[in-house]
Amino acid sequence: MANSEGNKLWGGRFVGNTDPIMEKFNASIAYDQRMWDADIRGSKAYVKALEKAELVTTEEMNSILHGMEQISEEWAKGAFVVKPGDEDIHTANERRLKELIGEPAGKLHTGRSRNDQVVTDMRIWLCDAIATLKEDALQLVATMVERASVEIDVLFPGYTHMQRAQPIRWSHWILSHAVAVSRDVERLQEIRSRTNVLPLGSGAIAGTPFNIDRELLRKELEFDGISINSMDATGERDFVAEFLFWASLCLTHLSKMAEDLLLYSTKEFSFIALADAYSTGSSLMPQKKNADSLELIRSKAGRVLGRCAGFMMTIKGLPSSYNKDLQEDKEAMFDCFDTLHGALRVTTGVMSTLKINRPVMEAALSPDMLATDLAYYLVRKGLPFREAHGLSGRAVFQAESKNVPLNQLTVEDLAAISPLFDRDVAAVWDYSSSVEQYSAPGGTARSSVTAQVQHLRRWLQDHTQFRPHRSILSLS
Amino acid sequence: MANSEGNKLWGGRFVGNTDPIMEKFNASIAYDQRMWDADIRGSKAYVKALEKAELVTTEEMNSILHGMEQISEEWAKGAFVVKPGDEDIHTANERRLKELIGEPAGKLHTGRSRNDQVVTDMRIWLCDAIATLKEDALQLVATMVERASVEIDVLFPGYTHMQRAQPIRWSHWILSHAVAVSRDVERLQEIRSRTNVLPLGSGAIAGTPFNIDRELLRKELEFDGISINSMDATGERDFVAEFLFWASLCLTHLSKMAEDLLLYSTKEFSFIALADAYSTGSSLMPQKKNADSLELIRSKAGRVLGRCAGFMMTIKGLPSSYNKDLQEDKEAMFDCFDTLHGALRVTTGVMSTLKINRPVMEAALSPDMLATDLAYYLVRKGLPFREAHGLSGRAVFQAESKNVPLNQLTVEDLAAISPLFDRDVAAVWDYSSSVEQYSAPGGTARSSVTAQVQHLRRWLQDHTQFRPHRSILSLS
Amino acid sequence: MANSEGNKLWGGRFVGNTDPIMEKFNASIAYDQRMWDADIRGSKAYVKALEKAELVTTEEMNSILHGMEQISEEWAKGAFVVKPGDEDIHTANERRLKELIGEPAGKLHTGRSRNDQVVTDMRIWLCDAIATLKEDALQLVATMVERASVEIDVLFPGYTHMQRAQPIRWSHWILSHAVAVSRDVERLQEIRSRTNVLPLGSGAIAGTPFNIDRELLRKELEFDGISINSMDATGERDFVAEFLFWASLCLTHLSKMAEDLLLYSTKEFSFIALADAYSTGSSLMPQKKNADSLELIRSKAGRVLGRCAGFMMTIKGLPSSYNKDLQEDKEAMFDCFDTLHGALRVTTGVMSTLKINRPVMEAALSPDMLATDLAYYLVRKGLPFREAHGLSGRAVFQAESKNVPLNQLTVEDLAAISPLFDRDVAAVWDYSSSVEQYSAPGGTARSSVTAQVQHLRRWLQDHTQFRPHRSILSLS
Amino acid sequence: MANSEGNKLWGGRFVGNTDPIMEKFNASIAYDQRMWDADIRGSKAYVKALEKAELVTTEEMNSILHGMEQISEEWAKGAFVVKPGDEDIHTANERRLKELIGEPAGKLHTGRSRNDQVVTDMRIWLCDAIATLKEDALQLVATMVERASVEIDVLFPGYTHMQRAQPIRWSHWILSHAVAVSRDVERLQEIRSRTNVLPLGSGAIAGTPFNIDRELLRKELEFDGISINSMDATGERDFVAEFLFWASLCLTHLSKMAEDLLLYSTKEFSFIALADAYSTGSSLMPQKKNADSLELIRSKAGRVLGRCAGFMMTIKGLPSSYNKDLQEDKEAMFDCFDTLHGALRVTTGVMSTLKINRPVMEAALSPDMLATDLAYYLVRKGLPFREAHGLSGRAVFQAESKNVPLNQLTVEDLAAISPLFDRDVAAVWDYSSSVEQYSAPGGTARSSVTAQVQHLRRWLQDHTQFRPHRSILSLS
Repeated sequence: MANSEGNKLWGGRFVGNTDPIMEKFNASIAYDQRMWDADIRGSKAYVKALEKAELVTTEEMNSILHGMEQISEEWAKGAFVVKPGDEDIHTANERRLKELIGEPAGKLHTGRSRNDQVVTDMRIWLCDAIATLKEDALQLVATMVERASVEIDVLFPGYTHMQRAQPIRWSHWILSHAVAVSRDVERLQEIRSRTNVLPLGSGAIAGTPFNIDRELLRKELEFDGISINSMDATGERDFVAEFLFWASLCLTHLSKMAEDLLLYSTKEFSFIALADAYSTGSSLMPQKKNADSLELIRSKAGRVLGRCAGFMMTIKGLPSSYNKDLQEDKEAMFDCFDTLHGALRVTTGVMSTLKINRPVMEAALSPDMLATDLAYYLVRKGLPFREAHGLSGRAVFQAESKNVPLNQLTVEDLAAISPLFDRDVAAVWDYSSSVEQYSAPGGTARSSVTAQVQHLRRWLQDHTQFRPHRSILSLS
Repeated sequence: MANSEGNKLWGGRFVGNTDPIMEKFNASIAYDQRMWDADIRGSKAYVKALEKAELVTTEEMNSILHGMEQISEEWAKGAFVVKPGDEDIHTANERRLKELIGEPAGKLHTGRSRNDQVVTDMRIWLCDAIATLKEDALQLVATMVERASVEIDVLFPGYTHMQRAQPIRWSHWILSHAVAVSRDVERLQEIRSRTNVLPLGSGAIAGTPFNIDRELLRKELEFDGISINSMDATGERDFVAEFLFWASLCLTHLSKMAEDLLLYSTKEFSFIALADAYSTGSSLMPQKKNADSLELIRSKAGRVLGRCAGFMMTIKGLPSSYNKDLQEDKEAMFDCFDTLHGALRVTTGVMSTLKINRPVMEAALSPDMLATDLAYYLVRKGLPFREAHGLSGRAVFQAESKNVPLNQLTVEDLAAISPLFDRDVAAVWDYSSSVEQYSAPGGTARSSVTAQVQHLRRWLQDHTQFRPHRSILSLS
Repeated sequence: MANSEGNKLWGGRFVGNTDPIMEKFNASIAYDQRMWDADIRGSKAYVKALEKAELVTTEEMNSILHGMEQISEEWAKGAFVVKPGDEDIHTANERRLKELIGEPAGKLHTGRSRNDQVVTDMRIWLCDAIATLKEDALQLVATMVERASVEIDVLFPGYTHMQRAQPIRWSHWILSHAVAVSRDVERLQEIRSRTNVLPLGSGAIAGTPFNIDRELLRKELEFDGISINSMDATGERDFVAEFLFWASLCLTHLSKMAEDLLLYSTKEFSFIALADAYSTGSSLMPQKKNADSLELIRSKAGRVLGRCAGFMMTIKGLPSSYNKDLQEDKEAMFDCFDTLHGALRVTTGVMSTLKINRPVMEAALSPDMLATDLAYYLVRKGLPFREAHGLSGRAVFQAESKNVPLNQLTVEDLAAISPLFDRDVAAVWDYSSSVEQYSAPGGTARSSVTAQVQHLRRWLQDHTQFRPHRSILSLS
Repeated sequence: MANSEGNKLWGGRFVGNTDPIMEKFNASIAYDQRMWDADIRGSKAYVKALEKAELVTTEEMNSILHGMEQISEEWAKGAFVVKPGDEDIHTANERRLKELIGEPAGKLHTGRSRNDQVVTDMRIWLCDAIATLKEDALQLVATMVERASVEIDVLFPGYTHMQRAQPIRWSHWILSHAVAVSRDVERLQEIRSRTNVLPLGSGAIAGTPFNIDRELLRKELEFDGISINSMDATGERDFVAEFLFWASLCLTHLSKMAEDLLLYSTKEFSFIALADAYSTGSSLMPQKKNADSLELIRSKAGRVLGRCAGFMMTIKGLPSSYNKDLQEDKEAMFDCFDTLHGALRVTTGVMSTLKINRPVMEAALSPDMLATDLAYYLVRKGLPFREAHGLSGRAVFQAESKNVPLNQLTVEDLAAISPLFDRDVAAVWDYSSSVEQYSAPGGTARSSVTAQVQHLRRWLQDHTQFRPHRSILSLS
């Protein structure tokens, strides 16, 4: 064990050995190695600031930069060997640097603490992750918008309370989900702006001495701003909490869409059929074709919100500044990224390959879904809506009693309910003209849905200039 | 029961009575009456759009407007009588309108659904609530910044891992929390911008017919934008979820500050004393003075995150558009507002009245907290930091072994550890000059803390132009 | 304000006044008054122990008992007046006692603390609440079992992954939910056994002096045991946490049943129709009949889990013994009780009044649901199941390709897939004999479902001897 | 990709390929391989039932049993090779079996579904895991009880609201936590009894045909009972939810103890010192010795509750029977086991190695902590407690005003407050006799604490007969 102690960054005053169970309980290298690239970039920037502050010579700087590049290659090739005692990625990289370049490696950590180092790594990593997720989400929105544009003339039942409500366009349904994801993109950008702030140069708690130039660090690492207070910078994880919640809310949107599609793909609805590429079968029942992709997407909202709630609970009531409890931040962040990265792409795949069954969708429209239109007919003849609603309800009741569709009530039947009903009521029973009533912005009329498509196309154009400049690396 | 059925907005086709247990389980009037003002404002705007669309005459509009004002007065005076059958605030107000003005009341709901009405009410209410909370938060930040400015010369231990780490300024601690709350304000503004979007005119699901002018509604109700898709508008509650999470994150910040202050007000720390106004005693132990205010603040983070997690779980996997499950939105929203409104103001009260015990704070600084400075001493003499850190650790160990404070090691003791130690090491043991090292932005040097104060003062100025224009009404 | 201070139990050493915002933030009387009965019963028991310990005379005891009965009557009649300064139910009752009987009232709190008093009140209250919920749950199970018994011959599709899987009995479905609720009852009893433990006599933290006889208290208050350690007794809220989680798990069961029934009551499935008593309509669409009862039940799982998660977060990382944070326990407990009490009874109402549409249910059975039986046919002829599964799958594919139901494939079609197929394959296409295959315990055969009914009837008999002996009082 | 399809258990009717992203999103082999042993045991039992039902010959059974043993050895040695297409452990094991023994492997799945197979594996695995955790918890309780026994004469301040309240025994504190963990053990046993129920023989949903003898399966797999309803058995995960919540509640107990110990190990309290084996240092500050072990334990309550809340959210509102969403169950279960297994053992290590600083603990007792005793002094002289409490409070106030310890008030000072004060008041100021007052069960008197130790020793004896009979295997 003495060997493994030998690498520890804090061994000086300690005499006892660490309990091996504690060693495992404490170590984060198993997962934080995923930030190797961010850690190396952070160190490369830092050594430049050290050189400017004359804490290392130019030669030493170059030696460190060169060593770091070598380490980077080792990670990239999968050749980096984690050794016992490498409790975290920072220790591992610095240990390796020392092996490669010797003594100057010991100067790299001057004025820096793992407290500001780790949060710098995380912010770099998360900015990259956000760029990737933004691409994923834009792809999904684009897919949905184009599908909505193509299938704009398909009508089917709109449901409220899971009951048939009013006829709507299938594209109106698609766009209702696209709009939700577009809000997710906007939120993600706001989170990015708060994530992309440099904490390096905050030290352990009090800040950094030696005239380390934080502006230089900011520029090197392409951050948009510099943290305001060193205690806050090392002890806060708002950006993680925000990201975890973002992932949770985004997944509730996907879970809602998945639930709709699961309903629509039941035998009973039969509105859509998933591509085989997103379906699986049963080990027992040969006829089964299950929409596992959608069930998985639906399920992940729980997983991700659990990570969010768990992390919030972990930080609740913690004292200021760095506490080891914060180590819970990374696995949650990685897991939510992976989950969203998978879920968004699978959703895009599902949405771009599913087939709709237009005849079934249109056959599902039924005259009772026009009961509101029947009330509107009376409104147009001057009746207050509340009264018209009651009379239309009575017509529905009578049709149910006679066991005929609502549009099969005779004009006499209707006239018995209200003398305002006349032959022209026949015009009510047309689904295509029903939907065209809803032409106000946001409605299901063709013009209104077209406007939504156009709006989202413009929005997509505005948002696709943004490009990720760092690659996300998953070593798991 | 027939009577109570009589008021229902949807009674037409129903023949059975509602189970009284179900009636209670279903009704929301007990809490949603809190939105009476928003509901009335929404209806007043709506009737203007109806008039423009020639669905009511100008006379009818005026009658409805006048009736609504009368109802508003009844609520404001506490004179409004909720009747059996008033299942929600919308039903109650419309029922009352009919009593007051008769038949034209029945025209008010033309083309509107409770689905778009309720979410309009909530958005109006929440915008007002956000304005109030923003004021509360700004007040807290302002209080902290001014206190930080006054007490800038007080030093005390900065802690990491709950262990004394390095000397810092008390103001540095204050500002670390002020900065966190300032981020909360920024997030709150972003949420407001997404909340302040008009859903009215979305109907139940498909949109609104009759050429209702949604732009007129937007202007009347002072919304910044109009919802894009009617299905999304009636079925999404992102703004609620975001607000609940905002409240949770803000309260984790307050819980962190509360935890620090609870520690500092223990007998063992004795750094601060709360004003009696924020303390309570024991029913058994006469000597006790408990910081109940801080414990309550700490506790509320759980309550509020619970609301958030609960609501997320409720909306997980729901199908599109309005489902009754969404009724869970309002109590959560109200409760989080009330909790934050209380917690922010109590925190302001605590922070503006607590007394610090400067001699005790400064006496808590101990030479071992300068071990990093001791290492820096060696760095300045050319040693790599990693080595200097090890040697300083050995000095700490030796001081502990000899049971003397670190600064009581003789130069000989130190020289035995490293020949670089010399007489000038004495200069290390000065807390005031130690903190002055940290002069980079965000550090604890006087200049740096002063810069933070100035930054936040400017920030406050930029944010206080914003003024709430609606009053929050609590009837509970 | 001096007046309001006057009633405080801990005012002795305080000189400042409490901030009114703090006063409101701190007070619990608005909700904890609901425990008035438990508080009075606790005090009545306690004064008997005081008399035995000769800390009050028999006369004083009788005076206190008499006063307490008077207060009890005031509460029961709704005549008790809460006054400013009554921060909690304990203070209110003691204040009133003093008004009624004068000085001896001041002896009641001897050796007692609000720390052990409040947790005693809560445990008494919760034991009563548990008894009520157990009755509610037993009622639900009994309703379901009797319905299952009556409708045992109704077949319909069993679904996995929301896709038709195999024919099952409707009663099998009913019982699957009844069994889940029966487990809830068992869990509830376990929680009760841990709740029904006396904490009174633990004082504030150290225990109780003066030879207070805790065994006497236990007997008087009908607790089953006595807490083991006073610090633990006053500072732990496991029983609350367990109850909140119990409520959450129970509601996930109800949410699952609700989801099924919501599906079954869609137009597309049309398997069931809810009674009007548990349905509501639309303010806009006259034809709508929404299963609001089921949506509400589904939604409440979120609310209740939110309470649970929130409370867990509140107690996370709290120091030992009583902290004011624990005040969050009561609202959560009350809310979960109310929610479950409503949800269980509404579910019982729904289940006892819904109508099934047997022809539609049976018509929903389709030959492809017997694909497993087709594979079993081959297994009976000696084929390994894995191979038979593949061949049956091919038959399904061929039927789909030919666009005929699976049972319309000719023997020749089948024989082309496997020579083992012969005329006797016709016997496979019988739903009634298909279900009879599943006669192992737990299966859907008539005998097996009958055995489940009998099992649950016996179980109900075993569990209905337990009777609640205290009434739950809701003042809200 | 065609190859990878080849191994799928459900490939028959599918023609398209699976999207590789979907493949990864869907696969569980990365983590469910951890149940290889349970899966093999389940299959070995199942083949015996198949043989009894004459679905396989004795020879085939032996071949399968032998093959399974070979696979078991491969897993145990780390030699099992997971291949593309092995989407889960069930597929992997069956695929390998076929490679080893050929055709008879295809008979193993007869009448079985992955739906009942996976939940059988999980229940077997969890019963083993519970046995391990029970051992861990018993070890912790035993450690604490023995420590409490040895250090019974150490007094120190008991805190409420983080303020010094009354003198208590250090052992009283230890036992307060031991009692909480003993409740965790009892809850764990209850969960085990509900986990140890056989679901195998439930098929996919409807049960199992072919006269599979479930009682034989039960005996072979050492389950205590048989599931009652096949739909419930394959679709419910109560045992997982219960376990996750158990883990959460247990960790709140450990988090509470950790918080206390973190406080006690601050410089300001200095009551205890952790062994180096459970401490770590700082990469920057050489003097730091941080109690990382305790911070990690404190943090884990969030992680685990997050898993619980997340899983509850996932199962909320799911329809009956198996849905792919349930796949979220395993990672949560494994993670909570690993976390608890680590946390309990680290806590045991911390508690068995920490050193107390008795002089500091006893010096922290201060006369004001006896203010309650001062009130009791007056009670013993006949004053009602409420009045005595007020007078003692006044004495505290006067001592504070005079800036002297409470026991330094002169008899004259006290007499001015109440004439009942006399010379004998001096006897109040003895901490040792103060604690001895609390001799009722649960109190802090020596006799009472000794009784607690004895109680727990007996309890431990009663619970250590239970022995785990299966080894937990972690492949991660």
